[in-house]
Amino acid sequence: MFSLRVAEDIELVLLEERDAAELYALVDANREHLQRFLPWARVATLESERAFVRASLERFSRGGGFDGGLRLAGALVGALGVFNVRPDVRRAELGYWLAEQVQGRGVMTRAVAGLAGELFEVQGYNRLEIRCQAENLRSRRVAERLGFKHEGTLRSVHPAPGGLAADLEVFGLMRPEWQRTRERQG
Amino acid sequence: MFSLRVAEDIELVLLEERDAAELYALVDANREHLQRFLPWARVATLESERAFVRASLERFSRGGGFDGGLRLAGALVGALGVFNVRPDVRRAELGYWLAEQVQGRGVMTRAVAGLAGELFEVQGYNRLEIRCQAENLRSRRVAERLGFKHEGTLRSVHPAPGGLAADLEVFGLMRPEWQRTRERQG
Amino acid sequence: MFSLRVAEDIELVLLEERDAAELYALVDANREHLQRFLPWARVATLESERAFVRASLERFSRGGGFDGGLRLAGALVGALGVFNVRPDVRRAELGYWLAEQVQGRGVMTRAVAGLAGELFEVQGYNRLEIRCQAENLRSRRVAERLGFKHEGTLRSVHPAPGGLAADLEVFGLMRPEWQRTRERQG
Amino acid sequence: MFSLRVAEDIELVLLEERDAAELYALVDANREHLQRFLPWARVATLESERAFVRASLERFSRGGGFDGGLRLAGALVGALGVFNVRPDVRRAELGYWLAEQVQGRGVMTRAVAGLAGELFEVQGYNRLEIRCQAENLRSRRVAERLGFKHEGTLRSVHPAPGGLAADLEVFGLMRPEWQRTRERQG
Amino acid sequence: MFSLRVAEDIELVLLEERDAAELYALVDANREHLQRFLPWARVATLESERAFVRASLERFSRGGGFDGGLRLAGALVGALGVFNVRPDVRRAELGYWLAEQVQGRGVMTRAVAGLAGELFEVQGYNRLEIRCQAENLRSRRVAERLGFKHEGTLRSVHPAPGGLAADLEVFGLMRPEWQRTRERQG
Amino acid sequence: MFSLRVAEDIELVLLEERDAAELYALVDANREHLQRFLPWARVATLESERAFVRASLERFSRGGGFDGGLRLAGALVGALGVFNVRPDVRRAELGYWLAEQVQGRGVMTRAVAGLAGELFEVQGYNRLEIRCQAENLRSRRVAERLGFKHEGTLRSVHPAPGGLAADLEVFGLMRPEWQRTRERQG
Repeated sequence: MFSLRVAEDIELVLLEERDAAELYALVDANREHLQRFLPWARVATLESERAFVRASLERFSRGGGFDGGLRLAGALVGALGVFNVRPDVRRAELGYWLAEQVQGRGVMTRAVAGLAGELFEVQGYNRLEIRCQAENLRSRRVAERLGFKHEGTLRSVHPAPGGLAADLEVFGLMRPEWQRTRERQG
Repeated sequence: MFSLRVAEDIELVLLEERDAAELYALVDANREHLQRFLPWARVATLESERAFVRASLERFSRGGGFDGGLRLAGALVGALGVFNVRPDVRRAELGYWLAEQVQGRGVMTRAVAGLAGELFEVQGYNRLEIRCQAENLRSRRVAERLGFKHEGTLRSVHPAPGGLAADLEVFGLMRPEWQRTRERQG
Repeated sequence: MFSLRVAEDIELVLLEERDAAELYALVDANREHLQRFLPWARVATLESERAFVRASLERFSRGGGFDGGLRLAGALVGALGVFNVRPDVRRAELGYWLAEQVQGRGVMTRAVAGLAGELFEVQGYNRLEIRCQAENLRSRRVAERLGFKHEGTLRSVHPAPGGLAADLEVFGLMRPEWQRTRERQG
Repeated sequence: MFSLRVAEDIELVLLEERDAAELYALVDANREHLQRFLPWARVATLESERAFVRASLERFSRGGGFDGGLRLAGALVGALGVFNVRPDVRRAELGYWLAEQVQGRGVMTRAVAGLAGELFEVQGYNRLEIRCQAENLRSRRVAERLGFKHEGTLRSVHPAPGGLAADLEVFGLMRPEWQRTRERQG
Repeated sequence: MFSLRVAEDIELVLLEERDAAELYALVDANREHLQRFLPWARVATLESERAFVRASLERFSRGGGFDGGLRLAGALVGALGVFNVRPDVRRAELGYWLAEQVQGRGVMTRAVAGLAGELFEVQGYNRLEIRCQAENLRSRRVAERLGFKHEGTLRSVHPAPGGLAADLEVFGLMRPEWQRTRERQG
Repeated sequence: MFSLRVAEDIELVLLEERDAAELYALVDANREHLQRFLPWARVATLESERAFVRASLERFSRGGGFDGGLRLAGALVGALGVFNVRPDVRRAELGYWLAEQVQGRGVMTRAVAGLAGELFEVQGYNRLEIRCQAENLRSRRVAERLGFKHEGTLRSVHPAPGGLAADLEVFGLMRPEWQRTRERQG
């Protein structure tokens, strides 16, 4: 029902319980694609998506970020959210995934850029963070294109299939860096 | 951060804690005007508005409606919310108030029409309700212009200044009536 | 265990968990009769009645009214409760049902009169409300005999069998009206 | 509002928040008398009595006993409650106090007898317990007159003035003993 | 992970969830032996032991005592805990059980002595209490050897097999008595 | 009351509310020393330490790590705790601080080594993490001496005096690396 326009053709929709079925359909259609880097995708059900949306809204209501759906020309094509909000140092982490069929068109880069604009310029954040696995080239590239700096590699910190743990690459973007990205992108 | 466009020039913004200061400034500037029919306006403080927004978001996260701010050309000019949601009979109540200086321009009528469209046509509501005091002519007219039917007068049910209780007029709008309003308004 | 004598031969008993079995037996014996206007009666189980009593006592403990059982010469024959308590305007709503076999003897009218006396004269209420479906003639008559005024008809607000929604007639009784009823009844 | 008649002239009233002021007035008038054995009496305020009633009703709503007021010919003269309910072995503890001016007339003995009748004969309890300090002769005598057996002396278990701890005498009454008391009292 | 050395060869380990499996294995191996006086032993499962440890740690975190495991030369052989803590009169109750195969060697007497030393001498307790059934000779002897005084017999207060209720012997040990025990034991 | 021996002369004590006064005295004596890297030290009070211990025990009771005090020959000299426990990938973070007067003697290195042994070898952790500011040379050296690898520098993520945000160095130690440290240290 409520959304933020993050690009001319992309809306970031605050997910509500009534969106769970549509969200689940998208996850289910992209299960194989998603589960490579997102362990929850392998076991997602309609009910788990409903619980996810409920928990996520409850987190939003306490000022702890949110989970949004991305609508491209009206159709749900992915998710983009804000996590691990730390008001004292004005930082937060971003997380996202995109349906396979709309990849390769810069959708997520534009969406994250729009959200970063809101967070840095309207809400006064000082730092945004993206964490992804080294092999997750598409996710990395979103961060790199937007000027995020690689800050380190945390070893074996992320749940991976088979009960294993994967390394996470940490990328950070400070407010002045964002301004340079903004200028560069015209 | 998240909003719903309810008219070409009006956005219904889901209120967050960071909006409390702007909301309080508007209430404070319209205190005399508002407290005639809204008892809370007389005692509103920045802190009470903050608590109101927090409680309201928590209600939203449980599917119990929401409190929104109305932005006219970007400026906060009033509030419009959904209460007493009853999913079993698909009904809810609407509540609203407007800053004095933008009254008389049909702002609230257009905003409520936009929200009613979302609720009836997207979310599948079957009945919307508006309750206001008989003397609150502006509020009544919003209901009447949109085709709400007067269903009764509940005596002495609403807190009024001086520890008194005022009557409330109840207006209801059923889905078929909304469609007629829609057609009439072109 | 605790009760209020509402008429010479009728006690209003505060329901406790140990009363759930007796309450369920009464509901079960009157299921067909009750479910016409009370949707919960169709699906009531011993366990749901137990949960109802627990929730009801918890509501009582927070000052939010209560659910009572009616004992006529010791036998449980119905229920009478107080809901939607609003201390700020000193109003509350009454709800009730009666076993089929004791209908037609004025039991509920006497019970509601006794409770209204307690609420208006001891507890300082200013307004009592009764809501029932138009077709629920027996319930209407209880209200009418006690001087409640018909205040309106709320359309499609009450869950009805088949996922439908029924209209509710709203009746209100103000303290001065109660006094006239009292005098009239001598 | 709700009560249990425990003797011809004595009602045991389930205390509600609206009774707190009357209860406090009684405690305040008997403060010196009560605080000898009841440490809370020394520091009771209207607000602490209100909190006590609220907590007590909440305990009642979970089936954990209750706190009642005793009305003698309508006037509040003391308190009698049920604590430490153990449904698995069907036992509970009784606690009570009486205003000084009505002592010596057997009021509490009759009230406890009435409550014991309800608990043993209606609610199926198997054991009731009374604990009091050795020097609390009036309390002891209530237990002794009703056939409670002295079972032991727990040393230094009860908060006493000055941060000290007093011994408690434990009295127990089993169901068959109650029946003998009943017969003896005719 | 955390423990208190209560005797040269005995450690009292604060039980954590990861200890539940080892605890359950010990209970299961001693089920027949334990259930004579401990009703829960008859129905204990791995899951119930896990829930027990969780609830117990939660109680510890609120300052309400704890449940410890006894390790004799590293092997879990029983349990010893503190219950019913009353800071205002500085008293608490002790509870314990021992695997059958290590009985008769004074293990529990030494463990309780070590814990009593900590409670009286470090933590400032004034009274410790042990409650056991009359027929539970081993438990009684632990209390008697450590100088606890028999204070009474509470009739039918303890859940026993078959829905029955057993008497409990109450033993108390005051601080000065503990000092005499200490001196006597050299 | 409960502790883990982490070195011949060092005990890691699970902090309880009764330890808050001693902990506060240590913080207060080292306030200037501690607040350089630990923002809470500047504003710590006896009451805040009490709240800290309570919250910390509550966290422990849910399996979320703990806060321990370090006792060197019986005297409290610092703190060492486990945070951000992630059972799915068997990792956790360590945090610690030491009183100024015992620094330079390898106390913390020996304490962390002892705790790491427990976590890797008894509890099955796979990764431990230490985060500290670049300028916090003593903290870094503890990590480096024990074989932790530097994995990155997170910019502006840690609250620093004056509302600023400091960079954090992240160090990680994997189980095989711990084994090499163990062998090297003999």
